[in-house]
Amino acid sequence: MSVRIAVLGAGRIGQVHARAIAENNTAILAAIADPIATAANAVADHYGCDVRTIDEIAASDDVDGVIICTPTDTHADLIEQFARCGKAIFCEKPIDLSVDRVRACLDVVNECKAVLMVGFNRRFDPHFAALKAAINKGDIGASEMAVITSRDPGAPPLDYIKRSGGIFRDMTIHDFDMAVFLMDEMPVTIQASGSVLVDPAIGAAGDYDSASVILTMASGKQVTISNSRRATYGYDQRIEVHGSKGMVAAENQRPVSIELATSSGYTRPPLHDFFMTRYIDAYAHEIAAFIDSIVNATPASPDGQDGLNALRIADAALLSAQSGKAVHL
Amino acid sequence: MSVRIAVLGAGRIGQVHARAIAENNTAILAAIADPIATAANAVADHYGCDVRTIDEIAASDDVDGVIICTPTDTHADLIEQFARCGKAIFCEKPIDLSVDRVRACLDVVNECKAVLMVGFNRRFDPHFAALKAAINKGDIGASEMAVITSRDPGAPPLDYIKRSGGIFRDMTIHDFDMAVFLMDEMPVTIQASGSVLVDPAIGAAGDYDSASVILTMASGKQVTISNSRRATYGYDQRIEVHGSKGMVAAENQRPVSIELATSSGYTRPPLHDFFMTRYIDAYAHEIAAFIDSIVNATPASPDGQDGLNALRIADAALLSAQSGKAVHL
Amino acid sequence: MSVRIAVLGAGRIGQVHARAIAENNTAILAAIADPIATAANAVADHYGCDVRTIDEIAASDDVDGVIICTPTDTHADLIEQFARCGKAIFCEKPIDLSVDRVRACLDVVNECKAVLMVGFNRRFDPHFAALKAAINKGDIGASEMAVITSRDPGAPPLDYIKRSGGIFRDMTIHDFDMAVFLMDEMPVTIQASGSVLVDPAIGAAGDYDSASVILTMASGKQVTISNSRRATYGYDQRIEVHGSKGMVAAENQRPVSIELATSSGYTRPPLHDFFMTRYIDAYAHEIAAFIDSIVNATPASPDGQDGLNALRIADAALLSAQSGKAVHL
Amino acid sequence: MSVRIAVLGAGRIGQVHARAIAENNTAILAAIADPIATAANAVADHYGCDVRTIDEIAASDDVDGVIICTPTDTHADLIEQFARCGKAIFCEKPIDLSVDRVRACLDVVNECKAVLMVGFNRRFDPHFAALKAAINKGDIGASEMAVITSRDPGAPPLDYIKRSGGIFRDMTIHDFDMAVFLMDEMPVTIQASGSVLVDPAIGAAGDYDSASVILTMASGKQVTISNSRRATYGYDQRIEVHGSKGMVAAENQRPVSIELATSSGYTRPPLHDFFMTRYIDAYAHEIAAFIDSIVNATPASPDGQDGLNALRIADAALLSAQSGKAVHL
Repeated sequence: MSVRIAVLGAGRIGQVHARAIAENNTAILAAIADPIATAANAVADHYGCDVRTIDEIAASDDVDGVIICTPTDTHADLIEQFARCGKAIFCEKPIDLSVDRVRACLDVVNECKAVLMVGFNRRFDPHFAALKAAINKGDIGASEMAVITSRDPGAPPLDYIKRSGGIFRDMTIHDFDMAVFLMDEMPVTIQASGSVLVDPAIGAAGDYDSASVILTMASGKQVTISNSRRATYGYDQRIEVHGSKGMVAAENQRPVSIELATSSGYTRPPLHDFFMTRYIDAYAHEIAAFIDSIVNATPASPDGQDGLNALRIADAALLSAQSGKAVHL
Repeated sequence: MSVRIAVLGAGRIGQVHARAIAENNTAILAAIADPIATAANAVADHYGCDVRTIDEIAASDDVDGVIICTPTDTHADLIEQFARCGKAIFCEKPIDLSVDRVRACLDVVNECKAVLMVGFNRRFDPHFAALKAAINKGDIGASEMAVITSRDPGAPPLDYIKRSGGIFRDMTIHDFDMAVFLMDEMPVTIQASGSVLVDPAIGAAGDYDSASVILTMASGKQVTISNSRRATYGYDQRIEVHGSKGMVAAENQRPVSIELATSSGYTRPPLHDFFMTRYIDAYAHEIAAFIDSIVNATPASPDGQDGLNALRIADAALLSAQSGKAVHL
Repeated sequence: MSVRIAVLGAGRIGQVHARAIAENNTAILAAIADPIATAANAVADHYGCDVRTIDEIAASDDVDGVIICTPTDTHADLIEQFARCGKAIFCEKPIDLSVDRVRACLDVVNECKAVLMVGFNRRFDPHFAALKAAINKGDIGASEMAVITSRDPGAPPLDYIKRSGGIFRDMTIHDFDMAVFLMDEMPVTIQASGSVLVDPAIGAAGDYDSASVILTMASGKQVTISNSRRATYGYDQRIEVHGSKGMVAAENQRPVSIELATSSGYTRPPLHDFFMTRYIDAYAHEIAAFIDSIVNATPASPDGQDGLNALRIADAALLSAQSGKAVHL
Repeated sequence: MSVRIAVLGAGRIGQVHARAIAENNTAILAAIADPIATAANAVADHYGCDVRTIDEIAASDDVDGVIICTPTDTHADLIEQFARCGKAIFCEKPIDLSVDRVRACLDVVNECKAVLMVGFNRRFDPHFAALKAAINKGDIGASEMAVITSRDPGAPPLDYIKRSGGIFRDMTIHDFDMAVFLMDEMPVTIQASGSVLVDPAIGAAGDYDSASVILTMASGKQVTISNSRRATYGYDQRIEVHGSKGMVAAENQRPVSIELATSSGYTRPPLHDFFMTRYIDAYAHEIAAFIDSIVNATPASPDGQDGLNALRIADAALLSAQSGKAVHL
């Protein structure tokens, strides 16, 4: 059985997902929607799919699921619309920047018994997935402490930052999701510090560009997170989890792994400089998991509750950074 | 402009190349040929191309180039057939196991002014290509010595070994091509040693399973090669080149790069265990280069002469191993 | 000129320092003091020095400096005694577990204009020293964030833990000193979390065995620290500092660096399993620095103020962990 | 029991061995001999030992063993002299550059039943020793192939090269000894290639500066060696041994192991740039083994036969490089 998928939004991430569907043996890219006709047509031409409006897709009998890649402020409405018409839904994170709006949206999803998967792509990265598998296999015994380092090659445009909800809701949220995913537990206490060290304009926009967080789980397990909006050496994405029997760590990734030795030392090339090349496999595996959940009628994961969890932690972190106090969930 | 390509042979490597063509933006997979109808049909169904016989493809106006993935003993004949009908030709290595037959075949190619590219895929591996680029950029000054380590996860079936032409013509030939490619020079002296250390049955079949080779170029540059038909830890493929200003090395590749630390030490997973996963990017880049050479009417590289060069070195290595003498080209 | 040094305390660390003096070309080990005669005699026999009482050493004209390796609760009194009789003083950390007592002791040191160096040995580790030198050289631009991972192979005896002042004053204090040393700045806000994950007996003794800390400096620079009292793979001591132009990290150290590759993967041996082998070079360099400061009459570093600074941060961390609030210095 | 050792020759390596004796708990440095009085006196002053002539040492009742660090052309005579007067002998490699002279010398050693240890220090390097231990433990199954890379930071003075016996007898000889030590077997066939790539003056002096060698053992096991007299990135000393169950490799060593990441990539410092810092532990362990063999009256290892073996391989390699033929032992 093949499932037929429509992609809403023909931007950068929409194109990535369209390609993942086209290369997936179980799925067919049925339609693309985008208010910019040239963008939609480019995708349609390349993969031989239809261009339709969002409402046409909602009304289409030949579409089983949708992938929402539209601007953030449309996510919750679109989720509700497609939940109501019975389509399986994959939505890029976040569902919304407001916890209340997310809760209301998830109520609709639950009422409609809709399939909703949220785009925390890092869970599907082969390296992080192997790390999680090693933990599940018992390789490190009982998990105790995690250290997550997450630094972007460079800050996004100021305009984006202003709409992003801030570093905790936009960037650290991925680390919050990984923390909960890896430790299998929600934090009860969040301590955070935010600074402006990279670009004063980010501070002027009301945001931080550098952040550190401690999550303490009910069991006492701890996770520390270190974030920066700029890393000259590339997209720095490391996770290590320490437990009673050992530690497991996922290393950084680089496009080519050669090493040059000269009188200046031994040099390996910088890391990937873009999240899309760094996580290209993760995106494909994520879409494959969504398709599997439709084909096998199994629960989608990560789901709306995971999206809500990460957002609640982000809100607590922001409050902690602003107030200088630990925040309890 | 799109170029239309037919693939001859729907086996393992034929399928890899078919996929590379399908995903290439400049090429169209026009047809597949295979005496086993189910194999040909599977490829045709998956990519939406025709099934044709080899002779039909030779006669097709809508085919610009062919990719020869048939058994080795058919390569030279097919190259001549397609050279005569003006198709661009990509042929898996080797052209033939006989130097004389290769020379005769290349005469036909030259007469027909045909495009012929030979499948030394390792030149297109991103890591080895980056190593070559570093050399060309002058990062190590003048190249002087190379050390190539090449070990297979396991020996191929005995039946294959018997038809393979022996370890030097089948396995080391890739290292010979890389040596010439990286040092930009042919060896003048070949010293080789062959042993049976992995499996006595390989020795009974008249072959070696372990080999060491020194190539000495006219300039005095030296290359050492170490080969084994078995490596328990995966597909071991390393090259380093040492020069007047430094050294550059390409590291091994593994599917996932996590590290587990326990009381037993720090452990990273084994390497790729299969040449097709190890060299998946190399195959795609190789086919892209073939397509580029058709689109831009530029010389194909590596070409027939490169295939002949590597085979002549392999023959010399075999003679050296058998006679215990250095062989001069 | 040679300086003559006496060592107070012939225990484990006293022996390490005695050896460092004996091997130092500028110093002479003049005397050893220890209430346990066999311990003192063993050192005296090995290095050919005198056995004297502490009071005899204080009264000795032929002793330029002392190294205090006695139990913690004697440190402040001994510092004051030797400050008053004009000897240069090296004291193992901590000066005292009470900030008030440390302040009173430093008042005496200052009045006497005594040389006082405190034993934060990690500053003298060649790898950490190289990291600091790289920062000073401008290799990473402006420092912004540090991540310190510090895990012991195993917890000390409970009896020791009860007298230790707790994990922050006993173990994390080294990381606090390194944070201030590397960032050249004191924190203004300390956020800490403490848990009992390794051994409930440690919790019953009123201490934590796992801790995470965020230090935020006045400039907004941030340091995260992750501590555990147990690491199965050895003595885990890593520091990385991230800045505007890059990052510099000091790697872990192991006694032998071989790598074994098998079907289970690539394995390197565990790390050093003992702080004395891990930091053997650091101890020698530390004592050499103390001797240099006597010979050249230059200020000792780290000094008493550094000891006080680290202790104040430790007290703040403890308060933060216990109260769940950020503590401001 | 303490053993009393005299060192013959107060040059660079003599000083290293004098220090190793002084720091060894079982040995006493009894005397130093050197025709240059200032050199002998400097050692005597530093360690508090006598200055004596070689003949005085030979006649000394209070000397149990000697360490010969004099020029190569005196080694064989001194070995014979001290064998005849019953002293245990440690001699720096080589015993002599002539196989015949070595044989004659070993005859005297055997007649006198003298203890003779030869200074192949690499066997005692902790990393290479761990590699050998892993092989002996069965970690890689049956050894099959070794790859030895050995490159000096820079060529020695021409004057030294002229007296050295050439690259195979001076430099590769260490690799030959390691090959026999690790594979537990002598080669039956030696194939070698020598080139002048680093410095034409070395060629003018009748030597090579770059060499590659294949050793094939009677069992068919193979060892490849790659040598250069110059490596800009430091003292490159790697060994890997491949076997039926896996591979074990000893990594290069550097004085400090930090890593700097910038937009240019990830850089670690160069390797040790001098054999004495690289092998400082090896020298200490080597002398400790010599002292142990005296104390326990156990056979010294490596012994004179090991010295002869390595020299015979070196002679064969030179003949192979000059003649272009494989040489059989």
